[in-house]
Amino acid sequence: MLRKIVPKTFNNVGLFGRVRRSETKETFKQVAGLLSNMGLSYCLDKALLEQVDFTPMAAASQADMAKSVDLAIVVGGDGSLLRATKAVVDHDVPLIGINRGRFGFLADIAPDKVAEILPAMLEGHYQEESRFLLELELPGDQSKQHALNDIVLMSGDTAHMTEFEVYVDGVFMCSEHSDGMIVATPTGSTAYALSGGGPIIHPASNAVVLVPMFSHTLNSRPVVLSADSEVRFKVGSGIDAKPCVSCDGERVASLSAGETIIIRRKSQKVRLLHPQGYEYFNNLGKKLNWGRRLIDTP
Amino acid sequence: MLRKIVPKTFNNVGLFGRVRRSETKETFKQVAGLLSNMGLSYCLDKALLEQVDFTPMAAASQADMAKSVDLAIVVGGDGSLLRATKAVVDHDVPLIGINRGRFGFLADIAPDKVAEILPAMLEGHYQEESRFLLELELPGDQSKQHALNDIVLMSGDTAHMTEFEVYVDGVFMCSEHSDGMIVATPTGSTAYALSGGGPIIHPASNAVVLVPMFSHTLNSRPVVLSADSEVRFKVGSGIDAKPCVSCDGERVASLSAGETIIIRRKSQKVRLLHPQGYEYFNNLGKKLNWGRRLIDTP
Amino acid sequence: MLRKIVPKTFNNVGLFGRVRRSETKETFKQVAGLLSNMGLSYCLDKALLEQVDFTPMAAASQADMAKSVDLAIVVGGDGSLLRATKAVVDHDVPLIGINRGRFGFLADIAPDKVAEILPAMLEGHYQEESRFLLELELPGDQSKQHALNDIVLMSGDTAHMTEFEVYVDGVFMCSEHSDGMIVATPTGSTAYALSGGGPIIHPASNAVVLVPMFSHTLNSRPVVLSADSEVRFKVGSGIDAKPCVSCDGERVASLSAGETIIIRRKSQKVRLLHPQGYEYFNNLGKKLNWGRRLIDTP
Amino acid sequence: MLRKIVPKTFNNVGLFGRVRRSETKETFKQVAGLLSNMGLSYCLDKALLEQVDFTPMAAASQADMAKSVDLAIVVGGDGSLLRATKAVVDHDVPLIGINRGRFGFLADIAPDKVAEILPAMLEGHYQEESRFLLELELPGDQSKQHALNDIVLMSGDTAHMTEFEVYVDGVFMCSEHSDGMIVATPTGSTAYALSGGGPIIHPASNAVVLVPMFSHTLNSRPVVLSADSEVRFKVGSGIDAKPCVSCDGERVASLSAGETIIIRRKSQKVRLLHPQGYEYFNNLGKKLNWGRRLIDTP
Repeated sequence: MLRKIVPKTFNNVGLFGRVRRSETKETFKQVAGLLSNMGLSYCLDKALLEQVDFTPMAAASQADMAKSVDLAIVVGGDGSLLRATKAVVDHDVPLIGINRGRFGFLADIAPDKVAEILPAMLEGHYQEESRFLLELELPGDQSKQHALNDIVLMSGDTAHMTEFEVYVDGVFMCSEHSDGMIVATPTGSTAYALSGGGPIIHPASNAVVLVPMFSHTLNSRPVVLSADSEVRFKVGSGIDAKPCVSCDGERVASLSAGETIIIRRKSQKVRLLHPQGYEYFNNLGKKLNWGRRLIDTP
Repeated sequence: MLRKIVPKTFNNVGLFGRVRRSETKETFKQVAGLLSNMGLSYCLDKALLEQVDFTPMAAASQADMAKSVDLAIVVGGDGSLLRATKAVVDHDVPLIGINRGRFGFLADIAPDKVAEILPAMLEGHYQEESRFLLELELPGDQSKQHALNDIVLMSGDTAHMTEFEVYVDGVFMCSEHSDGMIVATPTGSTAYALSGGGPIIHPASNAVVLVPMFSHTLNSRPVVLSADSEVRFKVGSGIDAKPCVSCDGERVASLSAGETIIIRRKSQKVRLLHPQGYEYFNNLGKKLNWGRRLIDTP
Repeated sequence: MLRKIVPKTFNNVGLFGRVRRSETKETFKQVAGLLSNMGLSYCLDKALLEQVDFTPMAAASQADMAKSVDLAIVVGGDGSLLRATKAVVDHDVPLIGINRGRFGFLADIAPDKVAEILPAMLEGHYQEESRFLLELELPGDQSKQHALNDIVLMSGDTAHMTEFEVYVDGVFMCSEHSDGMIVATPTGSTAYALSGGGPIIHPASNAVVLVPMFSHTLNSRPVVLSADSEVRFKVGSGIDAKPCVSCDGERVASLSAGETIIIRRKSQKVRLLHPQGYEYFNNLGKKLNWGRRLIDTP
Repeated sequence: MLRKIVPKTFNNVGLFGRVRRSETKETFKQVAGLLSNMGLSYCLDKALLEQVDFTPMAAASQADMAKSVDLAIVVGGDGSLLRATKAVVDHDVPLIGINRGRFGFLADIAPDKVAEILPAMLEGHYQEESRFLLELELPGDQSKQHALNDIVLMSGDTAHMTEFEVYVDGVFMCSEHSDGMIVATPTGSTAYALSGGGPIIHPASNAVVLVPMFSHTLNSRPVVLSADSEVRFKVGSGIDAKPCVSCDGERVASLSAGETIIIRRKSQKVRLLHPQGYEYFNNLGKKLNWGRRLIDTP
């Protein structure tokens, strides 16, 4: 939601992202030049050193940047912003996203608007929005995983379905015989979950949605839960049941029959910075080609 | 949500509902007898006097009962419970629903279980759940309306679509050129909104859902909002635009071009009493024929 | 489907349509001038005489034009083309549609392309496509009705559902407790039926689709039938069951409990003429913003 | 469709299927005994010899049985019937399915009705229905594959989408950026395609349906085509594009960037035998819990 707070300015900026095309290189270079001109320190993800064609002020690992910077600027697609989020979220570093990908739901600054928009934001003229993440507890001693968009339990083998039970706050909800299930945050509700028929969830809602994937039960429908709820999946013991789990599209684990995963809201939220005048529905409506204002409206 | 409170017992019960079939008469008689036997006072909606075949202890209008009773027992379908809710909600009277209708999402006690279940509930063995309602502000001086399930803005003429703009917390969301739009509570998410393709919303979610009806935009999707949001519809000025508004399926107003309605959560919630052991998903899964526990689950 | 036939040229053209905006007047004038310049006779629907600002060569009723013209040119939206179709279909008159409406699935010539495209078509450079209509048999002695897009059985009262049984070729299919049902042709599959969740049906398919409207049964799904099938609806005798029937969005009858309507393919098809190079999916994809060719395709 | 033909009796029956549970063994034994008692020859799939607990009259490979038998009886689920269909279709052998699986859309005789129903069918009291299959042409010299339900092009890697172009009868339809696409026959329209949101297609329709899987384009919808159409998928050259193809749920090939597959109706249909009185919608409605006849219908 849009927090009414006193904006602050920044001293040390971390540059995150991914370079796939030459245009992205250009944007990185432009942002770096702009930060220099404003007299701000910045640091580039050292994994990108070989891919850009300028010499940055400094370079460091994502982990080191997360500890030292007070702002992350991400150049790339929504995928890049998802990864940067996970790198910085525990250090309370806010993020600005510059879109060089397809959709740009999250990375909402168009590259040709950087010169116009970014300086004002760096001087404190921005709107801050917080978004929650999901935390994934895997069986055994595996480390916790996180997702800003979604956690998906799905059949590991495209030819077979999977079987599992769903519990909400310890109470049995249903068993599923399907290709899997998506658990999405409001942020993820406009990503994979939307393709699967889920509703759009406004980011100010404290809600998650469970979207069944190709369920064999026609009565299966997306189910919206309070984000305070704990969702548990227990894998069935049928012979073809070897599902895998992914966080924001990256596979993080395979499960065996009878194993359980738990999904809950992560306590620490991520802070996204938007240009002044940002409106969630305006941004969304543009992406989805929604109907604009009626002609007769003053 | 299920409140953890010390249950209380009741002294004065109001009987609400509707008699369409002789079986419903039987259930009214059975409930009245059971209350007498337990030494409790009760009062029958006087509109039902002609329709039942027993002489009640007392009879009064719904308005008078709302002020004097400490429990409402509703015999009928979910529609009866919706009406009784609106009669008593401002007086904080809890409700028990005995199902004599088709679905019984709300009226969740089967009539053949009355003898077994009701006495225990009357002695304080119940689970209390609160559900929020929506409040509808109409143009001009018209009195406020309420809905437990849904408020629907729709074309008043089946042959024509309607055009309107949607605002959320004062911010433009989209314009719609469609048959209308449903705004549903979690309670209503399993009623008309579900037929329209909306998600199921758990009653513990502080959320409402906007479901477009036969939208001409393929990109229209159900949108889940925080129930703290205020939703405003502004009717377009196109020639065929004469929409009407209904609350829980009853038409409450017609609108003219340019007029506005506002929908927000009502501050007062309704209290539903369920038998001990009630589980939302268990009840829902039965109605929707959801998959039950897998065989291999201990 | 696109018939491989020897195209023919035209001598006597009928002008059909509707004038809602001044731009439409301009297009009518342009078309009339173009026909004159090419030395062709034409006739204007006399209902339009007051609405255009030129004096046509001749004017006549739609019924008279249907008997005498060998081509109908329709200026307006898809609704205008639907009406003109019904006026001329029994006289085997082909139609050309010039789009002055919103969508233009059927009226597929953009008004700014008239000068470029229309003369070539009038000289025989066109593609002919035939589309089938539905025929509606009402109870009693009522005259048969026709629809190019769809026939809809729906509750006549927005506050109540309707109940009816569906039979296919005399065999019981299902009973519906819903807002109604749409029976759509391939042509209508991209109109109202699409808003209701129906599939797109290619016009070369000899198929119709039944789309339930807000069905109370979650298992209700669009059902595609051979267009050779006869569909029969029998209205239930429940108290709220007073449905109405519409053809292409115009209400044609109200039904009483127990009454039956029959829907089958009309034997006579309508002939639509498209510019050379017309492709159904190209036209559709533009309207629906479908993904265009991948970059790597030669 | 249900062909009106003179039924015939059978002399040499092939037993097909799969044994997963002891109940299935019992059914195989029962059928074999019943065939013996009626004086008919039969032959068991020799792959099943170890799995049944009776000594069959004869045993042979599926390929040999296909050439010699005049009827195939399949004991198992719909999957078993799909496999048996492919074994016998080119030899014009009709099939009877006895359901030992979950759904039984195809294998429509309940095991506890075998004694009652099967003898009559073997004596010629049955209804014959033909269903068409799809033929899949793979790149290079790979042999043709067939499917009774569906052919699916999907990402071979659950973490990535695939990109491809769709052509219908040589004409570009759209490009897809999604998890894949299902091409289903009417028979397959109640299987995987239904889970993916496709319509139900009556088996008498000469139609196929294309169902996009988790398409990134909200405007993607199921598209129904004439089964006379040829559908071609061309894989895009994006880096993550390594889709695989499956027929009736079994993976048959992996594709590389730029490769093409072609799907068309197989010329030879399969013949399914049903008990007298079989009705497609009756069977379907039972599986889907559709609304039954209204109370008031005589």
